[in-house]
Amino acid sequence: MPRRIAIIGANAAGIDAASAARKTDRESEITLITHEPYPAYSRCGLPYVLAKEIPQFEDLIVFPPSFYKMMKLDLRTETMAKSIDPKEKSIQLQRNDGATETLKYDSLILATGAYPFVPPVKGIDKKGVFNLRTIGDGKSIQEAMKDGSKAVVVGAGFIGLEMAHAFEENDLKTTVVELLPYVLPAVMDKDMAMTVQQKLEEKEVRVIVGKGVDEVIGGERVKGVIVGSEKIEADIVLMSAGVRPNTELGKQMGVEIGTTRGIRVNPRMMTTLPDVYAAGDCTESYNMLTGQPTLSQLGTTAVRQAKVAGINAAGGYAVFPGVLSSAITKAFDFEVGATGFNEFQAQRVGFRTFSGTVSSTTRAHYFPGGKEIRLKVVAEPEFGRVIGCQIIAGEEVTQRINSASIAIQKGMTVWELAKADTCYAPPVNETWEALALAAEMAATRLRRAG
Amino acid sequence: MPRRIAIIGANAAGIDAASAARKTDRESEITLITHEPYPAYSRCGLPYVLAKEIPQFEDLIVFPPSFYKMMKLDLRTETMAKSIDPKEKSIQLQRNDGATETLKYDSLILATGAYPFVPPVKGIDKKGVFNLRTIGDGKSIQEAMKDGSKAVVVGAGFIGLEMAHAFEENDLKTTVVELLPYVLPAVMDKDMAMTVQQKLEEKEVRVIVGKGVDEVIGGERVKGVIVGSEKIEADIVLMSAGVRPNTELGKQMGVEIGTTRGIRVNPRMMTTLPDVYAAGDCTESYNMLTGQPTLSQLGTTAVRQAKVAGINAAGGYAVFPGVLSSAITKAFDFEVGATGFNEFQAQRVGFRTFSGTVSSTTRAHYFPGGKEIRLKVVAEPEFGRVIGCQIIAGEEVTQRINSASIAIQKGMTVWELAKADTCYAPPVNETWEALALAAEMAATRLRRAG
Repeated sequence: MPRRIAIIGANAAGIDAASAARKTDRESEITLITHEPYPAYSRCGLPYVLAKEIPQFEDLIVFPPSFYKMMKLDLRTETMAKSIDPKEKSIQLQRNDGATETLKYDSLILATGAYPFVPPVKGIDKKGVFNLRTIGDGKSIQEAMKDGSKAVVVGAGFIGLEMAHAFEENDLKTTVVELLPYVLPAVMDKDMAMTVQQKLEEKEVRVIVGKGVDEVIGGERVKGVIVGSEKIEADIVLMSAGVRPNTELGKQMGVEIGTTRGIRVNPRMMTTLPDVYAAGDCTESYNMLTGQPTLSQLGTTAVRQAKVAGINAAGGYAVFPGVLSSAITKAFDFEVGATGFNEFQAQRVGFRTFSGTVSSTTRAHYFPGGKEIRLKVVAEPEFGRVIGCQIIAGEEVTQRINSASIAIQKGMTVWELAKADTCYAPPVNETWEALALAAEMAATRLRRAG
Repeated sequence: MPRRIAIIGANAAGIDAASAARKTDRESEITLITHEPYPAYSRCGLPYVLAKEIPQFEDLIVFPPSFYKMMKLDLRTETMAKSIDPKEKSIQLQRNDGATETLKYDSLILATGAYPFVPPVKGIDKKGVFNLRTIGDGKSIQEAMKDGSKAVVVGAGFIGLEMAHAFEENDLKTTVVELLPYVLPAVMDKDMAMTVQQKLEEKEVRVIVGKGVDEVIGGERVKGVIVGSEKIEADIVLMSAGVRPNTELGKQMGVEIGTTRGIRVNPRMMTTLPDVYAAGDCTESYNMLTGQPTLSQLGTTAVRQAKVAGINAAGGYAVFPGVLSSAITKAFDFEVGATGFNEFQAQRVGFRTFSGTVSSTTRAHYFPGGKEIRLKVVAEPEFGRVIGCQIIAGEEVTQRINSASIAIQKGMTVWELAKADTCYAPPVNETWEALALAAEMAATRLRRAG
């Protein structure tokens, strides 16, 4: 009898788990269950549709229906998994039209994702207050932007930045409010975050840090927010204060939830229940540097976890090596990226840190069109190992973050990185790679301190 | 008495050696000797001036005269080092105006560079046949392009590619002639080189491989070249058949020359004579993967070697870790890069190889403006280590090469690279990093073969 694999969730993690399972076991029966009306689409693309850089939301749909046929995936849209019985290995499904069904499985993958965290603020249920998680959310915001002239973004993470960009592109005067003392607090150190804030301000985005939204005001519709003693007018309020793992179904069926609030898994992405796997935003990861559980709610983490879960759920063998949570975004005309620990995070988990920061250009100084780059390398003094990197630049950030990530994964020291064999040509880099220069600066500081 | 440091050559290696020496010993007397009329300039920028991407040759001059004053460097332009007596530690100098001088040194750095290899072809001394090594060469070519309508480039290395681009930008119909069976033979494997050739042909560059130039024809001025049985008309012939280490002075004074024809050095960049160092194009390197001597005549290698030579010559301690010869160029609208060994090179030094090649895009498939990328990972089967990478793409090649280079330097395996923690956002990458995908393909092949 063919193996029955059920996957709950059909976005990044669900689809990649299904693909990996199919490649591992050509005969298995794979069912994908999603309550959304659309099959897998790129959530990461939503802000860029709103910024008019991608023509329409439908472009974000990853695969045409033919893909599901070709891969022999039984895709059930607009279908909720209401409950799961892990002993019986059965799932109670309910379609949006009310029809119900019991689905049996041999292996189950929970790819239930995350939901937006909405802080308990008075008036937050008014019309004009949005999250951005689904195409539905995106379409509502697109509609609201037509009549709006002022926007407030609550939370200055990557999505907050991307949405500030989207609002400005739609000629909405935008204010970003961040409760913590600087923008991108989960990603950057304050010194680097200040550069990002400055760039936002150059783009006429108002940035308020160290203050939360105390109240959303207006009638039925939002008219503004109260931040400290100030009233800020707004036709649209976007909540981008992070997401929380969606673990209700997991809890109901009895899988263990970790200290991070994500589903606990072993390196094969197995939960604490037999034949039940988890992957994606609902799932914990292990940090490569500390081995400690962490939440890494990124598309890249989701697909990497999902591939491992899919292979194992289909009877194969694969191990997930953990995360550094390398992340990148592009908003306005600059890119911001980070990998590993920033100094704040590193110190919180017990590292002492030292760092080197350089400002350079992305091309030879004499080559027209070069962009500014500011790059920080974080290291620990015991072995001199690189443990983190943060970059802000007009171009060429993504692969520098990947270089740093690979260096961290392989235990490269600042001395090694300072002398790394890197490449250069005038239109694409300076002779001395910025990453190497920052590592050297860190190395020099370590020697002086030592 | 202050330490007297003499540096022969004042381009990339000379200047970086001088800077490192100055930072190591603030009191030393540093003399830089160059026969050229210009102080340090970027040779790598010459083709881009000719392609009209950089306004003028003078833009390539790295430092203003004030730099030399600030760094207390005694720069002697238009000055030849005629001979060196290593026992007396003295250099015979001759200025272009005929004046001579004896310069004493405590430490000497040979940064004498390289000279273009000119194949012994009949008629090669005709007017209109050029090398491109100096600003003087560049200016001559610029002048010749004004009246020319057809160019032949002999040698399809990076400079050959860059000059084909420059000629086309100046509306010269261009033919590239490569003796070896495919373009970029020192950098790419044939499968990847074919993609480059195709791109050149799309740009209306004619490419002839596997044939040499048998004769340069014309009167006093070049009128064309004979390639096999064909006569190809040309107003300009550019020789870009590689460069050879300039070691005459070294030989004269008695430093050992290595099997690569470069000056032999130890890891501190010391030659076989006491207190004599070497750096840059005249100098051997050691390959990081094999430990074997190799020539790595790149700007990046030059400055990295020079820094080590400068520190040591000034009484400090520094070690050069060797090279992978990571290299990149941009010509027309594409970038080509490589690091480590290609399969041909790897097999020549004794490795067995296997590889993975992917074609992908540089942005999410739905994000407008993404460029094609073709990426090959080369690995060896004993440990599964990555030993090389080749990339052709419309953008984002440089830092991918650097990622691969760091992976190689730290002994990363294809299994590790396939699961590396990389970053993604729709405007700057696909969810699955191309480097990881190629590594995975290689890993799959290794498993099947094993």
